[in-house]
Amino acid sequence: MPELRQDIVTGRWVVIATERALRPESFTRLKKEEAKTTTVCPFCYGNEALTPPEIMAYRPKNTLPDTPGWTIRVVPNKYPAFVPEYLRVGRDGKPLVREGTMPAGRQVYPSMVAMGAHEVIVSSPDHHKSLALLSESQVIKIISSYRDRYLALKKDPRIRYILIIVNHGREAGASIEHPHSQVFAVPLLPATIKEELLGAYSFFEREKSCIFCHMIEHELQEGKRVILGSKNYIVFAPYASRVPFELWIMPKEHKPSFETISFSEIEDLASILRIILAKLYKGLSDPPYNYFIHTCPPEHREMGIPGYPPEDMIPRVYHWHIEILPKLSIAAGFELGTGIMINIATPENVAKYLREMSV
Amino acid sequence: MPELRQDIVTGRWVVIATERALRPESFTRLKKEEAKTTTVCPFCYGNEALTPPEIMAYRPKNTLPDTPGWTIRVVPNKYPAFVPEYLRVGRDGKPLVREGTMPAGRQVYPSMVAMGAHEVIVSSPDHHKSLALLSESQVIKIISSYRDRYLALKKDPRIRYILIIVNHGREAGASIEHPHSQVFAVPLLPATIKEELLGAYSFFEREKSCIFCHMIEHELQEGKRVILGSKNYIVFAPYASRVPFELWIMPKEHKPSFETISFSEIEDLASILRIILAKLYKGLSDPPYNYFIHTCPPEHREMGIPGYPPEDMIPRVYHWHIEILPKLSIAAGFELGTGIMINIATPENVAKYLREMSV
Repeated sequence: MPELRQDIVTGRWVVIATERALRPESFTRLKKEEAKTTTVCPFCYGNEALTPPEIMAYRPKNTLPDTPGWTIRVVPNKYPAFVPEYLRVGRDGKPLVREGTMPAGRQVYPSMVAMGAHEVIVSSPDHHKSLALLSESQVIKIISSYRDRYLALKKDPRIRYILIIVNHGREAGASIEHPHSQVFAVPLLPATIKEELLGAYSFFEREKSCIFCHMIEHELQEGKRVILGSKNYIVFAPYASRVPFELWIMPKEHKPSFETISFSEIEDLASILRIILAKLYKGLSDPPYNYFIHTCPPEHREMGIPGYPPEDMIPRVYHWHIEILPKLSIAAGFELGTGIMINIATPENVAKYLREMSV
Repeated sequence: MPELRQDIVTGRWVVIATERALRPESFTRLKKEEAKTTTVCPFCYGNEALTPPEIMAYRPKNTLPDTPGWTIRVVPNKYPAFVPEYLRVGRDGKPLVREGTMPAGRQVYPSMVAMGAHEVIVSSPDHHKSLALLSESQVIKIISSYRDRYLALKKDPRIRYILIIVNHGREAGASIEHPHSQVFAVPLLPATIKEELLGAYSFFEREKSCIFCHMIEHELQEGKRVILGSKNYIVFAPYASRVPFELWIMPKEHKPSFETISFSEIEDLASILRIILAKLYKGLSDPPYNYFIHTCPPEHREMGIPGYPPEDMIPRVYHWHIEILPKLSIAAGFELGTGIMINIATPENVAKYLREMSV
């Protein structure tokens, strides 16, 4: 019997389509579509000149920027979806429009310049090793670079949100094969975060506690959707999973913001992220996936949204987490037309399969 | 310069990523991925026994149900995402749960049985002809069958919404090659319709007019995103297009509900739908796409949503339309994490390309 399940934070519904449900192992990728292998990879050693100049790198002191030797390298995206100030200048040197503000009411349709940042974090010098295959010390460096970029970008008061993502595999939108993460800094509050905040605030007003903490407690009690845990983190398949093998990583304690993560927490997160990605790699034969970090919006940003929590409440209401969404199905007409996802794998079966997968 | 554009109805933002924008013709499909060609197609003449018994068909009077001769055939989906009453009975013959209602408060996570309907409308007996290639008289039959199924299914008071869709091509989620549409009847108001209704109602309260009518007026005035028009309909690339070649078909006059369409309007719609799909077929070499009809929710359904328009206002506020979403790009980590789509084709260029495409 197909079942409608509701996510308690956002209120979105999904169908767990038991009539067409597949066993977890049937999602194993048979044909692997590789991302474009350029003859010359812009992210490999020696090709540093093929990217815009580096913003930051982890590199030995005796090496120069934009030369080999780095272990992590952060560069602007060559084809940015969001552009920093310095690009927003016309041929005459004057700014093209005012910063990130809505143009005056002449227009029927609202628009603004996509002011912000769009950066690439190259995972390592190794062209072939994705996060599941890198050493733990390298994954620690990757997560440290995430924190560094968050802290640097949130200083700009025009930035309303920062999102860090990974697209792994061509079917998940990776256009360059060499493993990398992307950082987006955007001038508005994303709809997904707004939904989470409104849902979490409404729960907080009713129950006087964090909805994500409540969810963790319930998951640990039920156990059947939990895959692994560590000192600080829990990994589980959410009850209202939108796609087969959707996974969430959450701090067990109430932590609003990713970017306040300590070094020992980074070590713990690196270990657990590597294990869960290795389980996916082994269990489904290196499936394509997307992941992103959802963190508390930066402080002191006026949002002007009805029902939005007051400034001082936001950190009590929000709880950062990572959402991993493997790309094993297609959002088709029904999903696009309703916003209701049809998921042909049950989260309980997925969790059992991954829990028992040894890596 | 990348540009953020806001859809005036739903408030959602998209990035028109000019830095990575492609010319319309570069979206032409090179490699065509076919949907699974089963050795025996359940939708071809002679194989009627391979589907569940037909719900309805257009067929000569001297032919029997579930035999050849039909021009349109409607059957239950063999693997339904939503199930009608008669399936919701246990082995002991008793109903498994109460109809479409939320289970009592024992659970932390809300769920309900996915009560409703999930039907397939086979487009024609021809295994190879999609809507772009069928005769106008056959497309008239398809649209007539849409109306028939809407009118039949909306009689059930437990149904909160009915959505008709097409998935064309494997990349767009078509699992059977033989062209067909699907009908979903669902026990809740989809998030997308709720968003449209809330946005349209808020505009109506402010401006005392329909936001969709306002959009049509503006599009006709500006002209640059309009592709074609007929007596009753307009086809345009929406200002805040989420994906390359997104197209909307809308009645020019204020019409809340698709299912009240007259026969002469069906003729006009069939003609314009066929032309726009033929333009896509020719212009992009038969691209994969999804389309769906967004119509006014059925009357007399209590929604209990804050800000939801009162019953008698809904038909004044809502305006039915078809959204066509070609599958030419991938929603990756940024889109999933923010809900903001990055579109690498400008609607104005898309409209010009399709306007000039002769079919």
